[in-house]
Amino acid sequence: MFEFSEQSRQYQAQLADFMTTHIYPNEENYHQQLAAAPSRFSALPLMDELKAKAREAGLWNLFIPPSLAEFADHDGLSNFDYAPLAEQMGRVLWSPEVFNCNAPDTGNMEVFMKYGNAEQQEQWLKPLLAGEIRSSYAMTEPQVASSDATNIELRIERDGDDYVLNGRKWFITGAMYERCKIFIVMGKSDPDNASRHLQQSQILVPKGTEGLEIVRPLTTLGYDDAPIGHAELRFNNVRVPKENLLLGEGRGFEIAQGRLGPGRIHHCMRLIGAAQRSLELACERVTSRTTFGRELSTHQSVREDIAKSFAEIEMARLLVLKTCKRMDEVGAKGAMDLIAASKISVPIMIQTVIDRCMQMHGAGGLTEDYCMAEAFNYARWCRQADGPDQVHQMALGKQIIKAYTS
Amino acid sequence: MFEFSEQSRQYQAQLADFMTTHIYPNEENYHQQLAAAPSRFSALPLMDELKAKAREAGLWNLFIPPSLAEFADHDGLSNFDYAPLAEQMGRVLWSPEVFNCNAPDTGNMEVFMKYGNAEQQEQWLKPLLAGEIRSSYAMTEPQVASSDATNIELRIERDGDDYVLNGRKWFITGAMYERCKIFIVMGKSDPDNASRHLQQSQILVPKGTEGLEIVRPLTTLGYDDAPIGHAELRFNNVRVPKENLLLGEGRGFEIAQGRLGPGRIHHCMRLIGAAQRSLELACERVTSRTTFGRELSTHQSVREDIAKSFAEIEMARLLVLKTCKRMDEVGAKGAMDLIAASKISVPIMIQTVIDRCMQMHGAGGLTEDYCMAEAFNYARWCRQADGPDQVHQMALGKQIIKAYTS
Amino acid sequence: MFEFSEQSRQYQAQLADFMTTHIYPNEENYHQQLAAAPSRFSALPLMDELKAKAREAGLWNLFIPPSLAEFADHDGLSNFDYAPLAEQMGRVLWSPEVFNCNAPDTGNMEVFMKYGNAEQQEQWLKPLLAGEIRSSYAMTEPQVASSDATNIELRIERDGDDYVLNGRKWFITGAMYERCKIFIVMGKSDPDNASRHLQQSQILVPKGTEGLEIVRPLTTLGYDDAPIGHAELRFNNVRVPKENLLLGEGRGFEIAQGRLGPGRIHHCMRLIGAAQRSLELACERVTSRTTFGRELSTHQSVREDIAKSFAEIEMARLLVLKTCKRMDEVGAKGAMDLIAASKISVPIMIQTVIDRCMQMHGAGGLTEDYCMAEAFNYARWCRQADGPDQVHQMALGKQIIKAYTS
Amino acid sequence: MFEFSEQSRQYQAQLADFMTTHIYPNEENYHQQLAAAPSRFSALPLMDELKAKAREAGLWNLFIPPSLAEFADHDGLSNFDYAPLAEQMGRVLWSPEVFNCNAPDTGNMEVFMKYGNAEQQEQWLKPLLAGEIRSSYAMTEPQVASSDATNIELRIERDGDDYVLNGRKWFITGAMYERCKIFIVMGKSDPDNASRHLQQSQILVPKGTEGLEIVRPLTTLGYDDAPIGHAELRFNNVRVPKENLLLGEGRGFEIAQGRLGPGRIHHCMRLIGAAQRSLELACERVTSRTTFGRELSTHQSVREDIAKSFAEIEMARLLVLKTCKRMDEVGAKGAMDLIAASKISVPIMIQTVIDRCMQMHGAGGLTEDYCMAEAFNYARWCRQADGPDQVHQMALGKQIIKAYTS
Repeated sequence: MFEFSEQSRQYQAQLADFMTTHIYPNEENYHQQLAAAPSRFSALPLMDELKAKAREAGLWNLFIPPSLAEFADHDGLSNFDYAPLAEQMGRVLWSPEVFNCNAPDTGNMEVFMKYGNAEQQEQWLKPLLAGEIRSSYAMTEPQVASSDATNIELRIERDGDDYVLNGRKWFITGAMYERCKIFIVMGKSDPDNASRHLQQSQILVPKGTEGLEIVRPLTTLGYDDAPIGHAELRFNNVRVPKENLLLGEGRGFEIAQGRLGPGRIHHCMRLIGAAQRSLELACERVTSRTTFGRELSTHQSVREDIAKSFAEIEMARLLVLKTCKRMDEVGAKGAMDLIAASKISVPIMIQTVIDRCMQMHGAGGLTEDYCMAEAFNYARWCRQADGPDQVHQMALGKQIIKAYTS
Repeated sequence: MFEFSEQSRQYQAQLADFMTTHIYPNEENYHQQLAAAPSRFSALPLMDELKAKAREAGLWNLFIPPSLAEFADHDGLSNFDYAPLAEQMGRVLWSPEVFNCNAPDTGNMEVFMKYGNAEQQEQWLKPLLAGEIRSSYAMTEPQVASSDATNIELRIERDGDDYVLNGRKWFITGAMYERCKIFIVMGKSDPDNASRHLQQSQILVPKGTEGLEIVRPLTTLGYDDAPIGHAELRFNNVRVPKENLLLGEGRGFEIAQGRLGPGRIHHCMRLIGAAQRSLELACERVTSRTTFGRELSTHQSVREDIAKSFAEIEMARLLVLKTCKRMDEVGAKGAMDLIAASKISVPIMIQTVIDRCMQMHGAGGLTEDYCMAEAFNYARWCRQADGPDQVHQMALGKQIIKAYTS
Repeated sequence: MFEFSEQSRQYQAQLADFMTTHIYPNEENYHQQLAAAPSRFSALPLMDELKAKAREAGLWNLFIPPSLAEFADHDGLSNFDYAPLAEQMGRVLWSPEVFNCNAPDTGNMEVFMKYGNAEQQEQWLKPLLAGEIRSSYAMTEPQVASSDATNIELRIERDGDDYVLNGRKWFITGAMYERCKIFIVMGKSDPDNASRHLQQSQILVPKGTEGLEIVRPLTTLGYDDAPIGHAELRFNNVRVPKENLLLGEGRGFEIAQGRLGPGRIHHCMRLIGAAQRSLELACERVTSRTTFGRELSTHQSVREDIAKSFAEIEMARLLVLKTCKRMDEVGAKGAMDLIAASKISVPIMIQTVIDRCMQMHGAGGLTEDYCMAEAFNYARWCRQADGPDQVHQMALGKQIIKAYTS
Repeated sequence: MFEFSEQSRQYQAQLADFMTTHIYPNEENYHQQLAAAPSRFSALPLMDELKAKAREAGLWNLFIPPSLAEFADHDGLSNFDYAPLAEQMGRVLWSPEVFNCNAPDTGNMEVFMKYGNAEQQEQWLKPLLAGEIRSSYAMTEPQVASSDATNIELRIERDGDDYVLNGRKWFITGAMYERCKIFIVMGKSDPDNASRHLQQSQILVPKGTEGLEIVRPLTTLGYDDAPIGHAELRFNNVRVPKENLLLGEGRGFEIAQGRLGPGRIHHCMRLIGAAQRSLELACERVTSRTTFGRELSTHQSVREDIAKSFAEIEMARLLVLKTCKRMDEVGAKGAMDLIAASKISVPIMIQTVIDRCMQMHGAGGLTEDYCMAEAFNYARWCRQADGPDQVHQMALGKQIIKAYTS
């Protein structure tokens, strides 16, 4: 039932080793460098060192699937084979970047690989694959329910050989980061088109383009997710050459659809890793602390919480693995029901598990002394990322009702 | 990930066909025959007819694993391959008996196959495998917490060439049933043995033996689960020949251990089928009912309930399948953690799913007009069967804590 | 904050005494008489004896409010003052009848008191107040969502000096009961009236009227709630004289509105009593049972369950008391938000509390040996009674949104 | 049932007015001043302005109960009368300080009022009551489960006319704040005393005393709660004169007991205000946003969430009010069960309500643009404050079991 490929199993072993040797021992160091950095969104020397090591170890761009293996130094990993690797990376929230496997760059690289032309790939994909620059994907807008992509309002207007952009965006992950150099921007180029799915285009806007204002970093539950961060942006007559258009006018929705499936599932994989680590920490905690004359681990309620958490992590993991398998077999579109099921089940389940693990740590569990509070924020945030759960429940419910009554 | 064997897939198709042709159309008939029967625990003619058809169709004793295939008309089905079959049977609560796959007979037949001697097998196993008689397993006692098997108090004392039994039992499934002919009884033959796991023996007591009093049928949430039922029993100097002992004196605990794993998982499989059917009924319901001017299916909260239920059923199913796979590979003992995880997660999850589906049916959902209320009772009851969930959470929590801290 | 009137406090003491002296000691007796009765819906001698005692003790018709005190032997009790009395009666599900305070007769008596004319009161209200006969209220229909009363389809047609009724009803509480003599039936007398709230009338139909067919008793979660029960009815050209009309043609909706508020709250009060008793039983249980070497009461998870249950019962009770207070001050209409809040919160909370208490009792907790399983069914059933919770959540949500944004 | 005193009702009206006129319009200003301040823990000019206004308006030290009215400019407010005032202050997390009613100063002032001698009151209580300085209460230690106060390890040793302190503390609220001038420190002066409740003393340590090291601010869920904050402290041979002792050697536990009850309840009151405001914001949100062609407020699931939240807030509020009433009548000790019930029920309930309200706001709900995320953190944090919920569940469960079985 879980026969990961030989390749995946080798990577799993290597990655576990790398985490133990290079990541866990550097967690405090990472936070210290961040605290001492010139700004919250500076690039950190430690990250560069670790990236070099990861690349040398061949743990690089593992998210690239077989169909796009031409862009990788390996043969490509199926979603199923990649899942346990992403889970491991999820154990330390900042570690995916070490392996060039962090959101939103993985999704953006996919866009370039699938929809970029040769020049766009040369200019942007190449340094992204090399981990030299970072990127952002500008979709969500503050004034509309962006979970319905047809609501997007940012205007992209042709003006001679240029396009001119006007509008607002927010929750633009990575935009604050010093390393970020390029934005993929979704907007409306043909708002009057009779087909609601042909009104959008996606276009490249280099950071620093005149009129592109980075208004502020946003926080969620108090976290700024530095140094990657989430930003609010304003586009005031931002002008870029027509060559910056991706794929063609009116094909923005098509690109958006092609990008979303794996992203949601990658979040789920990483969350499972975060929960698994929280549970392991809780087990350590309850065996090293005594209250009212008994080791915490001997309290029946502690054991119940541990047992339930173990079972829930296992169920979340299995759902994600089945979803991956289906995606590998029939593509994201045919796996829409399972992707939605994962999206609505895994983050809330993981949030609950981590909440329990924090509670077993006493007040300290809520602080920066452990990885749990930040992971809790990640899970909570994923209940909104790529659209609130409710939107996916609506779509999934509709699909299931139809499937079971026709 | 889910490659059921060719054999299993064939049985799945055949069984689905049999359910459609013979079971669903007879659900009302079954209840009518039961209502008209001489007693609540009479054998029903319909059952005999359907059993004959199932046996003819080769859908018989499918629970028998490859290691015991000598007792089957087929090559044996692994737990993994049997799971989807048990799930289908779970869609109609009384249907497993049609296929000679109902609790507690499956577990009892396993005991006879693994621990019975040739004579015991000839006398009891043969007619059980043929579906001619039914059996009961008498473990739980009202006065002690029987989830800890070492608490069992019924006395089995040697007296010449006989054993004499004294004590009480309850929740003895099948004991009320007209067809039930034999009890496997767990008791203490050597209560002073220094080893708490060598004090017990298991012994055969034919129904009708003098001194064996069937006190009353028990209900759970108002259900008597007729005609199979659950009984309270009293053993007043019940005397049986020494040949009725199973395996040997002091080996009762060993037999109990060997019996339990698959039983718990079979319950989970069937519950998943019951929930799946409830969800399908709910989908039909919400597309055929209008309130306040809208078809129920278009209410956002209805879609959310359907979506959550779909995801939860899927997660429960995956956990059970993984548990089966592990049991097939390393045996029930090595899968103890996953068996416990299933036992504590699946019934409560299924109870919640069915509760939602009942609610979508309005008041009618609670009645005998649908299969859901009875299935709800089954799920609720499974949170106590083979020990309350809390006992399994305790054991699992302890095991996980140990595993993650050593 | 909880200053019950002197009168209420006296009744509370008397009632507690009566429960201890006459009700608890007769619980087993009651079930034995029911089991031995000619039918499931026979009147029981014990009930008559206890009623006589209750009436003699002055614990009679305590549900009657001050505004209708002319019909009582006392000065009338406000909803607030009645609440702790109804709670006590809820501790034994069949006991409210002993005090002539059981559903649906209380609501029906209110209808007669408020809307009946002198003859109707003489003929039906008088024996109802004396506890000599019982009554039913026929509102819900199987084929429509009856939570929206305007959906009701049963036809009431004028024919000379008679009305003729045709249609179906179900979940008609009390209809099966031997003592039940009169039905208050809601139907449409003017289905084409432009106002949807003037189409309905309510009319009296004596049990035994030709054409009134009692199709069958219904069960919920396996319970038939005998001897009172819930029935499915058919009206086939049921003819009654025009004098049987209540209040006037087209005023059925008005009567229904006037009847509903207190009914829902009475259910909540009784449920709180049922939960309180379950909790007390659980406390006794956990101090009298030992597992794995520890008294159950010393397990941390047991204490957590007890603590949570205590707090939840208290919160449910306070919400109901506040609702009562508001109803007493401004009437049911002005307390609509709190009535809905109670209706959607109390039954589900009580169901959860009782579920925990059952679980602490082991498998026995699910049986008829304790009062909990039946109380669980009562709570579950109340999530549908007077309309599914979802309908009340819809109305309450709408009201709150409006209140907070205007 | 809710007859607040005339005085309380006047304050409620005045306070509502003050919030509308001075607090809500300054929320953005407050955050801007904090962002622009020299440090995260600087005193803000806005706070001083608002305090002056509040004091002038007579909305000052409203937490002082009648028994300590000699210290107030008013007659003292009972817990019951203060509850709706604290609820209103809870609507803006930083606003209690404006009214000199913020934690931990209220509790500290109580300590000074009840246990301080004339000199201690002159030096510290007077400026605290005037809002000129702030204070901290140093109880929790990182290395022991401090919910059991007898675990406290910080040493207080007599040395000539001084006491010398050595040990660690953390989660010391207010310690970071520029205005904070004095610490009340709990430690062990007589660790070998046979009575575990006579080993502790409490002593005053001015901020800036040599050897008192403020190690770092702590965050919970990413929040530093600036400018008040929570700190980790080290006491390295901190020397204070013997006159700084409170009440007497060995009376530290007694003081701790006297301080705790109201504190827990004040947190609950404020949380209810935070939830109430979140619900009001959610109602505004859902009437001003459209998705998939429908105003959010018309979605059934939105209405259900609003309805449930309304009911839950109401239940939490009622439980707190009843607790207050009991405390007013019989003191905190006699209300121990209800205080514990509030402590274990209100924060988790409020956390759930706020979580729903955040979700209805989309991704923005998690940011600093609304008050909800910070309030969510406050609720989560209160599940640990004054000991994890589990400790209170243990104590309450034990008490209830005893009460119901004796």
